[in-house]
Amino acid sequence: MMETTFPHHLAKDAVKQALAEDLGLAGDITGQAAIAADESMTCVIRSRQNGIIAGLPLAVAAFLSVDEKIRISRHRKDGEKVRAGDIVLELSGNSRAILAAERVALNFLGHLSGVASLTAQYVKRVKGTGAAICCTRKTLPGLRAFQKYAVRAGGGQNHRFGLDQAVLVKDNHIASVGDIGRLLQRLRRNAGHMVRIEIEVDHLEQLRKVLEHENEVDAVLLDNMDNRALQEAVALVDGRLITEASGGVGLDTVGAIARTGVDLVSVGALTHSAPVFDLGLDFHTELTR
Amino acid sequence: MMETTFPHHLAKDAVKQALAEDLGLAGDITGQAAIAADESMTCVIRSRQNGIIAGLPLAVAAFLSVDEKIRISRHRKDGEKVRAGDIVLELSGNSRAILAAERVALNFLGHLSGVASLTAQYVKRVKGTGAAICCTRKTLPGLRAFQKYAVRAGGGQNHRFGLDQAVLVKDNHIASVGDIGRLLQRLRRNAGHMVRIEIEVDHLEQLRKVLEHENEVDAVLLDNMDNRALQEAVALVDGRLITEASGGVGLDTVGAIARTGVDLVSVGALTHSAPVFDLGLDFHTELTR
Amino acid sequence: MMETTFPHHLAKDAVKQALAEDLGLAGDITGQAAIAADESMTCVIRSRQNGIIAGLPLAVAAFLSVDEKIRISRHRKDGEKVRAGDIVLELSGNSRAILAAERVALNFLGHLSGVASLTAQYVKRVKGTGAAICCTRKTLPGLRAFQKYAVRAGGGQNHRFGLDQAVLVKDNHIASVGDIGRLLQRLRRNAGHMVRIEIEVDHLEQLRKVLEHENEVDAVLLDNMDNRALQEAVALVDGRLITEASGGVGLDTVGAIARTGVDLVSVGALTHSAPVFDLGLDFHTELTR
Amino acid sequence: MMETTFPHHLAKDAVKQALAEDLGLAGDITGQAAIAADESMTCVIRSRQNGIIAGLPLAVAAFLSVDEKIRISRHRKDGEKVRAGDIVLELSGNSRAILAAERVALNFLGHLSGVASLTAQYVKRVKGTGAAICCTRKTLPGLRAFQKYAVRAGGGQNHRFGLDQAVLVKDNHIASVGDIGRLLQRLRRNAGHMVRIEIEVDHLEQLRKVLEHENEVDAVLLDNMDNRALQEAVALVDGRLITEASGGVGLDTVGAIARTGVDLVSVGALTHSAPVFDLGLDFHTELTR
Amino acid sequence: MMETTFPHHLAKDAVKQALAEDLGLAGDITGQAAIAADESMTCVIRSRQNGIIAGLPLAVAAFLSVDEKIRISRHRKDGEKVRAGDIVLELSGNSRAILAAERVALNFLGHLSGVASLTAQYVKRVKGTGAAICCTRKTLPGLRAFQKYAVRAGGGQNHRFGLDQAVLVKDNHIASVGDIGRLLQRLRRNAGHMVRIEIEVDHLEQLRKVLEHENEVDAVLLDNMDNRALQEAVALVDGRLITEASGGVGLDTVGAIARTGVDLVSVGALTHSAPVFDLGLDFHTELTR
Amino acid sequence: MMETTFPHHLAKDAVKQALAEDLGLAGDITGQAAIAADESMTCVIRSRQNGIIAGLPLAVAAFLSVDEKIRISRHRKDGEKVRAGDIVLELSGNSRAILAAERVALNFLGHLSGVASLTAQYVKRVKGTGAAICCTRKTLPGLRAFQKYAVRAGGGQNHRFGLDQAVLVKDNHIASVGDIGRLLQRLRRNAGHMVRIEIEVDHLEQLRKVLEHENEVDAVLLDNMDNRALQEAVALVDGRLITEASGGVGLDTVGAIARTGVDLVSVGALTHSAPVFDLGLDFHTELTR
Repeated sequence: MMETTFPHHLAKDAVKQALAEDLGLAGDITGQAAIAADESMTCVIRSRQNGIIAGLPLAVAAFLSVDEKIRISRHRKDGEKVRAGDIVLELSGNSRAILAAERVALNFLGHLSGVASLTAQYVKRVKGTGAAICCTRKTLPGLRAFQKYAVRAGGGQNHRFGLDQAVLVKDNHIASVGDIGRLLQRLRRNAGHMVRIEIEVDHLEQLRKVLEHENEVDAVLLDNMDNRALQEAVALVDGRLITEASGGVGLDTVGAIARTGVDLVSVGALTHSAPVFDLGLDFHTELTR
Repeated sequence: MMETTFPHHLAKDAVKQALAEDLGLAGDITGQAAIAADESMTCVIRSRQNGIIAGLPLAVAAFLSVDEKIRISRHRKDGEKVRAGDIVLELSGNSRAILAAERVALNFLGHLSGVASLTAQYVKRVKGTGAAICCTRKTLPGLRAFQKYAVRAGGGQNHRFGLDQAVLVKDNHIASVGDIGRLLQRLRRNAGHMVRIEIEVDHLEQLRKVLEHENEVDAVLLDNMDNRALQEAVALVDGRLITEASGGVGLDTVGAIARTGVDLVSVGALTHSAPVFDLGLDFHTELTR
Repeated sequence: MMETTFPHHLAKDAVKQALAEDLGLAGDITGQAAIAADESMTCVIRSRQNGIIAGLPLAVAAFLSVDEKIRISRHRKDGEKVRAGDIVLELSGNSRAILAAERVALNFLGHLSGVASLTAQYVKRVKGTGAAICCTRKTLPGLRAFQKYAVRAGGGQNHRFGLDQAVLVKDNHIASVGDIGRLLQRLRRNAGHMVRIEIEVDHLEQLRKVLEHENEVDAVLLDNMDNRALQEAVALVDGRLITEASGGVGLDTVGAIARTGVDLVSVGALTHSAPVFDLGLDFHTELTR
Repeated sequence: MMETTFPHHLAKDAVKQALAEDLGLAGDITGQAAIAADESMTCVIRSRQNGIIAGLPLAVAAFLSVDEKIRISRHRKDGEKVRAGDIVLELSGNSRAILAAERVALNFLGHLSGVASLTAQYVKRVKGTGAAICCTRKTLPGLRAFQKYAVRAGGGQNHRFGLDQAVLVKDNHIASVGDIGRLLQRLRRNAGHMVRIEIEVDHLEQLRKVLEHENEVDAVLLDNMDNRALQEAVALVDGRLITEASGGVGLDTVGAIARTGVDLVSVGALTHSAPVFDLGLDFHTELTR
Repeated sequence: MMETTFPHHLAKDAVKQALAEDLGLAGDITGQAAIAADESMTCVIRSRQNGIIAGLPLAVAAFLSVDEKIRISRHRKDGEKVRAGDIVLELSGNSRAILAAERVALNFLGHLSGVASLTAQYVKRVKGTGAAICCTRKTLPGLRAFQKYAVRAGGGQNHRFGLDQAVLVKDNHIASVGDIGRLLQRLRRNAGHMVRIEIEVDHLEQLRKVLEHENEVDAVLLDNMDNRALQEAVALVDGRLITEASGGVGLDTVGAIARTGVDLVSVGALTHSAPVFDLGLDFHTELTR
Repeated sequence: MMETTFPHHLAKDAVKQALAEDLGLAGDITGQAAIAADESMTCVIRSRQNGIIAGLPLAVAAFLSVDEKIRISRHRKDGEKVRAGDIVLELSGNSRAILAAERVALNFLGHLSGVASLTAQYVKRVKGTGAAICCTRKTLPGLRAFQKYAVRAGGGQNHRFGLDQAVLVKDNHIASVGDIGRLLQRLRRNAGHMVRIEIEVDHLEQLRKVLEHENEVDAVLLDNMDNRALQEAVALVDGRLITEASGGVGLDTVGAIARTGVDLVSVGALTHSAPVFDLGLDFHTELTR
């Protein structure tokens, strides 16, 4: 499998913004008041639960942004499984600097590993079906590129990154033009030849109209249909378009949805509701187990 | 009660960053290809669940950033209760513009209302005790000021905003200096007279040492203690310091923790694991109920 | 025809950057030294050649950025034909402010109208064929979104906006994997379902290999082929893929290339070598002709 | 001759902006999907025409911004002549990184070498006369410092960099004050002692008035005069002021204009209409010829 | 006299930066905790000493940046004399907003009025001589454009704004080339025709060498010479170059220096050591006297 | 004593802004025209007066931002005493680069050493009393974090860094609520448990009211009281609150104020009126004395 590429070109600004939030003008006043300026320490970042790790380049960048002389060795790579107790990073350097960057590093790691781990759980539930798990544009403002990367790290696929990358026609667009056929022709003509077009349908009647124009469209989003309707939709499409199911998807329902035969199941929760992944900075560096 | 102040000075840049993520260079290619340039529409943003709304100034700013001529009337204010079906905003203006800003507006609203609503649930569980619910620095990078605002909107209190605002001494600081008394004297001398000092203790023995220096410290963070120990700690402190409990706090446990008599219970989940609050843009504008 | 949408979300920063270049710290020292602070003037921006106008929102933004009280009436809209002597904007306001913004406004207008007008010339040469004219990623750094907009204003189409919007496979990618079939399968699997895939071929033999995998690819870029080969390629593809010709395209050759039956002809010159369009600020406001 | 200084202090931001345009949130999705993460390559950037190279520091910065481990050896320096087939840069490093930066590097190089090469052609035409070729403020927004540098690399001189650097009085300023003498006195008094003053004249009558105030002015811009008038103007000025000719300057006319004896000929086309210089990235590294 | 132009194009960013310093993430926590959200107030900014006011556009921008609905009436304009007790601005609007912007507004006003007032004192001391007072590049980082503006508001002149605006040759440049004549020729040839050249000399011998090349230079900076030497220097120059005195200039010495006949006296203290001008926000709005 | 931490996280942007002011688009045109591109030099920055040095990290960053190959050895550290003639930095590298950064480096050093040295003078006057010297929010816009650092380098303490760090109640807040007791209760309830509260009082009567609520407040600012009143106030407070004196503090009065027994004396002049500290770049590198 291809290794996913971390969006390095966006990392520096994201880390800078996060450090600015935490340091303000005065910086870490606790460390400055409690710890000698030249004291150094060795410590580890350790996982406190099982799951998939993601965000290590941001954590590393946070420490190095505060002090480029901190030495860091990586015990894990993004996308790898970790278990509770595993060390993911080992750090050595100036104490004030390490503690000033700790929270920012953990906040990135905790959130993105949370996204990757939740994605991996969904991916596991659809194993053996032909369906892939993909994310949506329901992301947390400012974090989209990293969240979408974490979805890939967890084994998921990315839907479009923004309004600029692909066409996705929703009910309101259809309402605005009135006729699906005329709308799809207009889109195919106006949208540029390098742009894919997907259309959302809510029931099979709409799907049939779309299929009359199958050459103007690449994919169909089957929104909030029950599994029986999904199955019927898959049969109607018969491989001529990509089929994506969305709406009401949870860990308990995703398996059955996937078994309807759809190509993709999109899950907003991956990026809007992923609980944090638990990690911590420990000063005792003995390896566990 | 004082009305909480929205961090207006940070809103413009946050909205700009979020729109840049979603629009890229090309903008909303679906709207541009499907909808006439001069078409206009009227629509509403409607809550799809019960809870506390937060983030309306960011949603409004998102729409007005794309087109300052969109007319918006606010049916709710941040911090107010909403029920499923309630309209929170009513919008009228250019269709391409409204749809280009929709997702960004909903992403802000969904996340911050999620934080406020989760906070409100915790606050409800501690009602009748003297304890307040407060947040931590475990926030999502780039969103801290807005998340902390949403905590206030949900009835919670803010812990320090960053490393620069107050001193919080942790185990590693103690380890670094070796003696709690010497450490606290050093802090009180170095930290500036306008800065509060809190110290984390893990067991009652530590707490007793801290209390020997009660004039050098303002608050004590009782970390990962069971409720019996918390109760004993509260008795030991006897009002001389502010007491804060943290660690292992969930909706099911927070009530009992609060009843131990602590002044504050801090909850990382408010800002690192709040599930999204469900809202949507509807084109049918009839008022519900 | 759909009216193209100007990338308003990028305009403010572009104008700010351009004004910063021209004003430095000291601003317009000529105006400040020569003209009274409260003097006002009325003037026009007039086309000095025939062509297509583009960039008016940037010109307007430049004037209003310097002084929001300048009154501006627009005589033309982007994408409209103008003839030498036509007034495009009429301005009235503080003299120092108008002259401070003049050059920036004209630089945007002159360049983007140049792009639009060159595009229109290419479009005219392929009239009656089925081919569209489209641009490339060979743009001037910092100006891509506006240049691609000007191409649309001139009647052309946009190729992908950046490396992030679509897949375009070049010879080096093929060399890297070794086998076109395996490469295309890998791409289709990895690239996400909302992403189109185009592959560059240099001769008919390659094209035949691509056509063996026609389901994994959306478009084929026929690079530097002579017109006879293009014609043969179009026949081979037979409507199963989008065909795009590139390489050695000039105003004198584009017509014959288009008549080979390709769907698109891409022209780097539209954005990397468009000569300026001549406009000027005149103080005599009598309407011409 | 003094070697011209590249504006290094502006390079990082310009490259960052250009890469942001091309990479968006998702980065180079073709490279990520087609090429293994750890694949490396060696390649060259080669000139495909004769001319003057400029912009190498920006090209180098583009590659190193994406991956600081790319090794680059420079075969040419800015301002040097290159012939079709010459290698200008040799690159070795991670394949995904090199291909992600390729287009941005080439766009900078192609445009700035285009400016330098066009300048060199003008300079060649005036060889043997005493006249220098200089640029104007008719630059492409966001690229002025680099364009003016490329003009120097091509052997030209820079006119003022912005409205803040020097005074240039145009017809409208004269109209505003009414009397050239009073205007020039006002300028000399208000403009600061470190600022040069140039005044535009359209005919010899105006020039004579200016010469009555030769101590208040440093240079005279002879705008749109025919060569006979220019010659007469040069004779009138008789070395007391710097003389600059502008208007209607092309490669075919510049020689005759220069031979009228003016000190400078300013050419807007250098920065507003320079055609791209052709370069490409080749994977076959054998040296040509 | 011409009214000086405020650098409006730089004001918004300067105010934003200053407010960010003072508000951080949490904003004015005193106002939020003490004052009702909808409380409004009327107040004035009043001078507490005699002098020249400068910086009002920045003060106004600070208030309007926090809340654009604050109503402000200006009782004074920049560059006007004020006496202790005079009202300069009258404000009316939301109390939290006014108090959140107060300190930033006063910091700008206090510093820039300090610069203007100190300048005015120097200008007063040289009244009746032909000498002007001018500033240097010894400015406070980030505030140069505003400080130079305040110098003009106080009746002074601006020296060059930056290294990019004019040539000023110092001893080290001379040492580097070895011969003043060769250096000046090189400068005149390389520096561009729109750039003035000034050379620093420390004694009369150097001045005589410079005068041998009077056509290659515009001004001479007479550095750290005593008044007798200055007088002799002025006689030697005899109006052929601009003469500027610098070094050891104070309010007590500037008059005598000016009477040596130099054209300019440059004073670093105007921008590096101006004491604050005392102003305050008063809640009692009765007009004084 | 703890060594104070320089705000490294803010240095890069501050230096970039200052260099942008001085270099504009064209850079150092004197150096470019006068000095060969490959010339190198060795030089020193030398103190020209006695005092405390501060700002060395910014000076170093200025040189390295222009050319990272400049070699710099530090002879002094921030906070150390220097005497006239002492070398603080020794530099070796490209001449054009060193001279391009010189003024920015000196401007930072001169201002911040001025702040540190003035602070040290105040600290010296209160030696032997228990009082500390502290700064205010009356800082120069854009320079607050560095100025407050320089105060620490000079032996002073920092008051709150911004409106966000602590509560300081002034007369207007009291007027707004009407009753000191109610106001303080409101503040203690709303301000968060990690925030200190200080209240300004103008006379002893107010102080007595405050003392009735001593549990709701941490410190009292005694504003513009004469020394007798200060003494009485200190007696009244009797160690229950921190006492701070402000208003009318000068080098001649600070000693007597400190001897009244207050804990702190705050001095606006440290940051709003510190005269520059004199340093210079010398090309003769022989060590003095």
